[in-house]
Amino acid sequence: MSKALRMSSMFLRTLREDPADADVDSDKLLQRAGYLRKTAPGIWTWLPLGLTVLNKIEAVIREEINGIGAQEVHFSGLQPREPYEATHRWEEYGEGMFKLKDRHQNDFLLAPTHEEMFTLLVKDMYSSYKDLPVTLYQIQTKYRDEARPRAGLIRGREFIMKDAYSFTVDEEGMKRCYMEERAAYERIFKRLNLDYIPVFAMSGPMGGSASEEFLAPMAIGEDTFALAPSGKAWNVEALTTPKAEEIDCSTTPAAEKRETPDAESIANMVERANGMYPREDGRMWEAEDILKNVVIAIKHPEDDDHDEPWRELIVVGVPGDREVDMKRLEAQFAPAELDEATEEELASHPELVRGYIGPMALGPQARVESSTIEEPLRYFVDAHIPVGSAWFTGADEAGVDYYNLVYGRDFEADAVVEAVAVRDGDMSPDGSGPLSFERGVEIGQVFQLGLKYSKALDLKVLNQNGKTVPVWMGCYGIGVSRVLACIAETHHDERGLAWPALIAPASVHVIATGKNEEVFEKAEKLVAELEARGLEVIYDDRKKVSPGVKFKDAELIGVPLVAVVGRDTMNDGTIEVRDRDGSNSEAVPEEGAAQVIADRFNAML
Amino acid sequence: MSKALRMSSMFLRTLREDPADADVDSDKLLQRAGYLRKTAPGIWTWLPLGLTVLNKIEAVIREEINGIGAQEVHFSGLQPREPYEATHRWEEYGEGMFKLKDRHQNDFLLAPTHEEMFTLLVKDMYSSYKDLPVTLYQIQTKYRDEARPRAGLIRGREFIMKDAYSFTVDEEGMKRCYMEERAAYERIFKRLNLDYIPVFAMSGPMGGSASEEFLAPMAIGEDTFALAPSGKAWNVEALTTPKAEEIDCSTTPAAEKRETPDAESIANMVERANGMYPREDGRMWEAEDILKNVVIAIKHPEDDDHDEPWRELIVVGVPGDREVDMKRLEAQFAPAELDEATEEELASHPELVRGYIGPMALGPQARVESSTIEEPLRYFVDAHIPVGSAWFTGADEAGVDYYNLVYGRDFEADAVVEAVAVRDGDMSPDGSGPLSFERGVEIGQVFQLGLKYSKALDLKVLNQNGKTVPVWMGCYGIGVSRVLACIAETHHDERGLAWPALIAPASVHVIATGKNEEVFEKAEKLVAELEARGLEVIYDDRKKVSPGVKFKDAELIGVPLVAVVGRDTMNDGTIEVRDRDGSNSEAVPEEGAAQVIADRFNAML
Repeated sequence: MSKALRMSSMFLRTLREDPADADVDSDKLLQRAGYLRKTAPGIWTWLPLGLTVLNKIEAVIREEINGIGAQEVHFSGLQPREPYEATHRWEEYGEGMFKLKDRHQNDFLLAPTHEEMFTLLVKDMYSSYKDLPVTLYQIQTKYRDEARPRAGLIRGREFIMKDAYSFTVDEEGMKRCYMEERAAYERIFKRLNLDYIPVFAMSGPMGGSASEEFLAPMAIGEDTFALAPSGKAWNVEALTTPKAEEIDCSTTPAAEKRETPDAESIANMVERANGMYPREDGRMWEAEDILKNVVIAIKHPEDDDHDEPWRELIVVGVPGDREVDMKRLEAQFAPAELDEATEEELASHPELVRGYIGPMALGPQARVESSTIEEPLRYFVDAHIPVGSAWFTGADEAGVDYYNLVYGRDFEADAVVEAVAVRDGDMSPDGSGPLSFERGVEIGQVFQLGLKYSKALDLKVLNQNGKTVPVWMGCYGIGVSRVLACIAETHHDERGLAWPALIAPASVHVIATGKNEEVFEKAEKLVAELEARGLEVIYDDRKKVSPGVKFKDAELIGVPLVAVVGRDTMNDGTIEVRDRDGSNSEAVPEEGAAQVIADRFNAML
Repeated sequence: MSKALRMSSMFLRTLREDPADADVDSDKLLQRAGYLRKTAPGIWTWLPLGLTVLNKIEAVIREEINGIGAQEVHFSGLQPREPYEATHRWEEYGEGMFKLKDRHQNDFLLAPTHEEMFTLLVKDMYSSYKDLPVTLYQIQTKYRDEARPRAGLIRGREFIMKDAYSFTVDEEGMKRCYMEERAAYERIFKRLNLDYIPVFAMSGPMGGSASEEFLAPMAIGEDTFALAPSGKAWNVEALTTPKAEEIDCSTTPAAEKRETPDAESIANMVERANGMYPREDGRMWEAEDILKNVVIAIKHPEDDDHDEPWRELIVVGVPGDREVDMKRLEAQFAPAELDEATEEELASHPELVRGYIGPMALGPQARVESSTIEEPLRYFVDAHIPVGSAWFTGADEAGVDYYNLVYGRDFEADAVVEAVAVRDGDMSPDGSGPLSFERGVEIGQVFQLGLKYSKALDLKVLNQNGKTVPVWMGCYGIGVSRVLACIAETHHDERGLAWPALIAPASVHVIATGKNEEVFEKAEKLVAELEARGLEVIYDDRKKVSPGVKFKDAELIGVPLVAVVGRDTMNDGTIEVRDRDGSNSEAVPEEGAAQVIADRFNAML
């Protein structure tokens, strides 16, 4: 008997209705078409069709990753606490980590990722630069106790991940491995027919220095990225503002103080300015003309000068029409964290006059000998503030602001920082034009870990000079089950799934219609001929099911080609061959139909 | 470049010494040869070589199991409590089950097996006899919190299992699926070159009715089985004693009472009998001539007549030279359990005279009208006691025994039971001759579950007559990672592993020796020629490693063929080709060597 998947015996039950709790198309269709069943929130059971597609995706990934010389290993999902304690991830991962105890009350976890275990494995086996470079990977099930699993496979509590780790004796080696892995990722996503965009990313909670995320652009994505006209993209956290062009201030009048009573907020300030000091050119004062100075506390960790963690107040000057993005700002002070200044802290600095804080009492200009400020605070300006720009801003006296205070002429900053939330139309970091903001799903990440894990877990080798050095690491992940969902999410229509040929659960879906036994014999013959040509076949051999239901099921399941053996075959000897995507439908003579179908399918690969 | 696994870059470090905590050869060798690393007790990391062999074993299993029409699915290792609660396994599994809570304090477990989930999946999808039969399986990692992990992969806390479940509308269907799966198991173990023996088994803690275990016979096995000369084998719990041949008692004198003071134990009784009543034929009295009557308590569950669990005393008569095997005996009273009788219970039956308990005050003979015993206890005899056999046994009076008390003439039993421990030389159940006891490792089990899970989880379908009936289930397991260990355990010598060709990590291990660059070029050419013939190659291309170390590594790794390119190749143009098992070694002309090796390898498959 042929190996075809027969609809009469396949473990499959298609659903006409969307499952009640499915919130995205891929989740609805993968359940309706019998690829998956939900066991518990975020926990899945793979049915035969789903497992077939998953295996094909894994095969593509293995081929490309083996192709760059990476070697496959496999770790348990269950791991002991100690290695994760050494890297502080046991605590830092928080509620997202499933923890449990064995019968001897030893602590274990279900690994959310395996950096620690890969590091320890290489430490266990290798000791010399001669052993390096080596890149190891696994395709394995990870567990994360998401608070709110959603979007089907896209954010579950278990998911299949390909995670690779490179080990090299130096930073250059790490960067080389990173570029190789990155190139393999591009080949993988291209072969899988999945649109992707590499997005420059900050290091995030994994530690390390350089990183890119691969996002599949789609409206249901949880991640926002900023896209430049050049095609380059950035995480919001990773965006840098190109240096603003210097403004010629040679004709800007000298700064002067002006009375601006009751102008503590930007809105009041704008109103007061427009009321009391109308501009000569008739233009209205806007929030963007005002320099807003925001006080923020930095929580520094202990350091050489401090035995304990310590707090520092700073002030950041930003355009009045923008808000501070604490996450972006914080990234520039890592590992320190940011906090709001307390009332006590504010009170201890009398130069911070509420609503009238200005740069003249801060930073470099407050550190001159003539200054009366004790211990002046550090002052930063946001990268959107050009040298030479003139501002309405606080004069450190209640009810008084400066007018025409010029950055670079009247005041300086200790440093320029990325402080404000980016927005549509901001200049892209590469200067190629205004940014737009898009949504996507993260399907992969490449990451220069540097020495974080090798230092924490003491992975060292002897280098070429006989010196013991920590090993440089990179890590590289693909969310395998998430990739499957993203392909489903971007390859479907209202009638069902429409898989790319390379990973479809079968090459062709043969449907026999009617009750004429001869039709079924002809269909059976076609199936055998297709299989002889190396095609994988789903064969709808059900006897008591209407053609309409069979067509609906075929469209729902989404195999690239559908071949119908039925009345036409009996009448005029033709078989109808359709593309699932609707691009083509033709009547093909029965004789030679298998070859036509094989040719069409192979052209799709 | 060729795809060969190059020793210069393979993630591998062979060990000359056995790991300290490895207790069996397979564990020692799999670690030493770089197939596995231990992460924590009973938790393993698969290295590239190990993963390759594992994948090949899985491929054989998939091929055979798909071949009988089973369909592959995949469940999560993490499962919610509720289904396991419904079958009572949440409690009954005890400390062997890893349990955990999610962030919402819901209970989860790491599944030790997936009966519940398969049952619920079929219930979720199917509702009619027309959907059946269906057999589903997965190859998946199971977790069991073993108290004392040992023997490497053979008893770990995680292990890879192929578990299949059949669903049929009736018992005949279940039996048919059982036989198909059983036959596939035989094909699998034969193809894997793993000696096995199907052993009749009791149902054990999984519930159900009929079952066989597949054991791989080996001295390190934890399981004992009884082997008949016919080649059939049984679990000790499953052994039945053939009906003992009736003894002609027509010339046996009538029973009489004899004084036997201070003969409470069997040993004393033998001494007393030999001292006081020497036999006429000069033979000594032995323990086997005495009928020992053992009082046992049965803990019955609640039933129609009892609202609460209740206890019953029974007495079992066994030959004096044998001990009661409580587990075997208990199996015949399941679901009741056995216990020792308490002093109070014994005291409440004055007919139970310590050391002189006899059948005449028990069972059928105590239920006659003339009896003075109130509520006589049930009396059972062990299956080794033939009808017509005459015994020295208690007469229910202190210091008095019966002589020539004949079973079937003077006393009867309520039933015959399997009560005593079986031993070497006991007759086999099929009557083919005396049993011998062997040790083995359980590598598979086939099991007729019956209705246990479908009733507990309410899996019903409409049958042919439109009636709702519970579904008959079978379950069928193979310990995949354990199979790998058993193959290693039975395919090695003191120098290392020696894999069967079908699952070896490569077909041939090519070694280039010396420092002559031309040797490495010739070896490289041979590797390419071997790969062109479809062979998988490990190539020892290391430049600064001695031939001795290379040979040792090759023997340790255990690929079926070793080809040495070295001085001989330069001198007389030959390549040495060795079988790993030592059965053959020959010098093959360089020209044509690849074909010779390919032919030799293919002949091994």
